[in-house]
Amino acid sequence: MTPNYPTQVSILEVGPRDGLQNEAQTIPLQAKTDFIHALAKAGLTRIEAGSFVSPKWVPQMADSAEVFKGISRLPGVTYSALTPNDKGMQAALESGVDEVAIFAAASEAFSMRNINCSIAESLKRFETVMQMANDNGMKVRGYLSCVMGCPYEGEILPDKVAEVTKTLLDMGCYEVSLGDTIGVGTPGHTHRLFDTLLEDIDVSKLAAHFHDTYGQALANLVVALQYGVNTIDSAAGGLGGCPYAAGASGNVATEDVVYMLNGMGIETGVNLNAVLAASNAMFGHLERQATSRTYTAMLAKCNRSY
Amino acid sequence: MTPNYPTQVSILEVGPRDGLQNEAQTIPLQAKTDFIHALAKAGLTRIEAGSFVSPKWVPQMADSAEVFKGISRLPGVTYSALTPNDKGMQAALESGVDEVAIFAAASEAFSMRNINCSIAESLKRFETVMQMANDNGMKVRGYLSCVMGCPYEGEILPDKVAEVTKTLLDMGCYEVSLGDTIGVGTPGHTHRLFDTLLEDIDVSKLAAHFHDTYGQALANLVVALQYGVNTIDSAAGGLGGCPYAAGASGNVATEDVVYMLNGMGIETGVNLNAVLAASNAMFGHLERQATSRTYTAMLAKCNRSY
Repeated sequence: MTPNYPTQVSILEVGPRDGLQNEAQTIPLQAKTDFIHALAKAGLTRIEAGSFVSPKWVPQMADSAEVFKGISRLPGVTYSALTPNDKGMQAALESGVDEVAIFAAASEAFSMRNINCSIAESLKRFETVMQMANDNGMKVRGYLSCVMGCPYEGEILPDKVAEVTKTLLDMGCYEVSLGDTIGVGTPGHTHRLFDTLLEDIDVSKLAAHFHDTYGQALANLVVALQYGVNTIDSAAGGLGGCPYAAGASGNVATEDVVYMLNGMGIETGVNLNAVLAASNAMFGHLERQATSRTYTAMLAKCNRSY
Repeated sequence: MTPNYPTQVSILEVGPRDGLQNEAQTIPLQAKTDFIHALAKAGLTRIEAGSFVSPKWVPQMADSAEVFKGISRLPGVTYSALTPNDKGMQAALESGVDEVAIFAAASEAFSMRNINCSIAESLKRFETVMQMANDNGMKVRGYLSCVMGCPYEGEILPDKVAEVTKTLLDMGCYEVSLGDTIGVGTPGHTHRLFDTLLEDIDVSKLAAHFHDTYGQALANLVVALQYGVNTIDSAAGGLGGCPYAAGASGNVATEDVVYMLNGMGIETGVNLNAVLAASNAMFGHLERQATSRTYTAMLAKCNRSY
């Protein structure tokens, strides 16, 4: 009665960008590059390493060009960055970024409050970025936020998510990462979302980017896996927290995801102990504990003998 | 494509016993009875309120008789207790306990280390308890520990779990609560476990008692629900922690479970805000934060306006 789970899952590690961007402390450049090296050595072959956005908006990412200059690249690893506009895209190209990402919200209210324009306008602004990426033979990933709920609008209809997802794919994104930005979704939402999305969209074009704010991320991922989703975004140690609920969990932790997939016999190519070591070094720079349960349990077990 | 989930789930709240028993602080009697009252008012109709075990072994439960004397009982609520032997059973009967529980391990090594006898011997010792319960028309629940793994033996075979579960049912337990005592199970283990158990056992006889040590509890519960399991044990706020990994999470939190089931449209009769209030009052007596993600997010949201 076991459903058909994918045999392999590709994990996209978002800790160095989505994670660190939401931490209170600014991390030294060397610690960032060390972190990225450690993640790549742990077997993570897709690493979101920075964001080419105004340092006024996101001071934690002000050194993304230096990060890309500073890292030694492992063959087979894709180092990507978020590019909000043509200026960011230009900087990304100059930094030798492997792949870029654009973003939109599935909630009009969130789009207005977050970037001060409608969803349609926000997508229009990315046309130049898409053109530049095309001209340079660069792949573009799409991030879609608030796919299960919005802090301003509440529940978001799956039809709206499907509509914006299709637009992002039509614009040329090779994949859309479905973000439960405030972590409010449950397996109920996840079923409704994929029931709708898969009517018109091939599952290979979709990634799950779930947050663990209400502890639902792994439960939602199990459901997503049952629909055939085989790309998962996660952050080492659960870096990032939730900007909408201080002290709460944010991105699902890479350790928790890998532990689960290991136990399900789903291959990731990721070494769990090595991710733990990468997280442990990074959390030495932060004034808070990692929220990853697997990280916490594994460290506690290391410190104990029975 | 949404699987057949149960429309209703019965939650058995284990915070006052399984939870508090594993906390470092000793909780005053009044705080315990207040807690139990608050949980019952929150709509939890099955509450494990104490344990009639030697105070030398479990000092936190030394006042269980006083707890049962001190509580005002809500109609429709079952207040249960753990009874390790005939002496405990006698005390439970004198305290007017509604229902009792016996326990065994699915791991021989765990049984030997925990209670210094084999699984078969441990079950034999409960024969008098079962007889006393029968004579008094009292229902007996069975707890089975280490169903997905053992701290000493490692992985536990589903066949072994099935064997001991059947023995507990044959002895007269109306239900067996399947405990992932150290929280190591994943959806992979959960599938294997229920694929085996349901060959011979009716799902209505089984309850899921999962721990969140590695963050897997809700993911495992989703799978259990897909097999038709409709009784879930949980502890308010995630009380209890993990005795095998200090600082790590233990029992899955009632809030996280109720949040998930609410989102799935599965009825529990439990008021989430009221559970949160009950946990919040109890954690005022403890020198640690609640591990429940839903609790943390909901409290953070209360303290913030956006």
